[in-house]
Amino acid sequence: MATRDRPSAAEGARTIAASTNSGTLATLTATGDPWASFVTYGMLDEAPVLCLSSLAEHGRNLQTDQRASISIVSPGDDPDPQSWARVTLAGVAERPVGDDLVAAREAHLAAVPGAANYIDFGDFTVWVLRVARVRWYGGYGRMDVATGEEYAAVRPDPVAPHSATAIAHLNADHADDLCAMARTLAGFPDASAATCTGADRYGLDLRVTTPRGIAYTRVGYAAPIDSHRDLRSATVELAQRARIGG
Amino acid sequence: MATRDRPSAAEGARTIAASTNSGTLATLTATGDPWASFVTYGMLDEAPVLCLSSLAEHGRNLQTDQRASISIVSPGDDPDPQSWARVTLAGVAERPVGDDLVAAREAHLAAVPGAANYIDFGDFTVWVLRVARVRWYGGYGRMDVATGEEYAAVRPDPVAPHSATAIAHLNADHADDLCAMARTLAGFPDASAATCTGADRYGLDLRVTTPRGIAYTRVGYAAPIDSHRDLRSATVELAQRARIGG
Repeated sequence: MATRDRPSAAEGARTIAASTNSGTLATLTATGDPWASFVTYGMLDEAPVLCLSSLAEHGRNLQTDQRASISIVSPGDDPDPQSWARVTLAGVAERPVGDDLVAAREAHLAAVPGAANYIDFGDFTVWVLRVARVRWYGGYGRMDVATGEEYAAVRPDPVAPHSATAIAHLNADHADDLCAMARTLAGFPDASAATCTGADRYGLDLRVTTPRGIAYTRVGYAAPIDSHRDLRSATVELAQRARIGG
Repeated sequence: MATRDRPSAAEGARTIAASTNSGTLATLTATGDPWASFVTYGMLDEAPVLCLSSLAEHGRNLQTDQRASISIVSPGDDPDPQSWARVTLAGVAERPVGDDLVAAREAHLAAVPGAANYIDFGDFTVWVLRVARVRWYGGYGRMDVATGEEYAAVRPDPVAPHSATAIAHLNADHADDLCAMARTLAGFPDASAATCTGADRYGLDLRVTTPRGIAYTRVGYAAPIDSHRDLRSATVELAQRARIGG
């Protein structure tokens, strides 16, 4: 089996879902029209947990029809919004009871502390979105679908959420190494510059400047890592391999 | 007729829609399920203009059923996402033709310059969302609905998008004036501090600290203003009125 060199769509989706606490919900109105509305959420493992008022349109919608999807965006530094990673998680919302309700309530409050001000009000309901279908978009040219089972079976990336400092260091102090990686490891022998635009447990995303234009590529570590604390040794190995020609 | 002292829901909605170039679209899948997806948009007067690929789920959805809504969020400085202003614009997407298509295409490109790279590809379609129904949320306790007609009849606030510098100045150098406004003009005689959290053509939003807790209120200028360049004189008048006791 070939070693995976980049996150799967399911992993990318889990990572985006774990990266923030707000998104946009799509529900159905009484006439079956699609209704987009801003929501906050927490994660109970792979399932987004919502806390919605039945006085609000989306809360009323779910009481009538539990089909829903949520779009979550992970804004990047690039001013072009189309480059931002995002995911749609689609499925059916359930009202948890008993211990499941306790766990869902805690998951929501952990991500949205301000919800303590209203979560116990009579008009608020905790909903768990059971994800049946996933559409992941990782950036230009990186997109795929995943099933609910694939999405539930993986874990959020442990490296990407903590990689900003390491990426800034690579770009500030190791521009030559990044360019060497692009030339010898990523198939751009005419690269004149490269910047790191992302890091995860499998490798680095690179933005490469060539005489032919800008390209986006990727270099994989010798082996996946489990913590951002391993980023330094993994990138040193990449730089050494790049210098000796791959 | 009483002078309006704050933006209407329709004005608030127009202002939020004009403030950015990305949002989340809700459409219907072939099975009538609600599908939330990230989109970029431009504004053709009051109508959001989308440019969607028929290879993407939302593009295919609209070809089958043109009902759609878009949620647009205007993130605030407050880390609590529930305080952020947002709007849902719901209606029906149309494919413009002729001069309408030219105008819609230009409106989209003006807001999303990167779309020049794909807007003329065969799989992309320009859609104009005809807004029939509006749900506006201006922050905690400020929410209302508007009809499509009300929304189309107003203009985006000319002051709010350019008010950040003035607000920072008020908070840094005029804390006493803001507290006086809260005490004598906004009905919080026990205010111990106040910060400005927003400014528009009608007045200032204030966050007030009192012995009883935090409150959100509002003070209106003597008369509406048409430009952020009038903010200084309008707030000086407010401060003078606050000092002499309202």
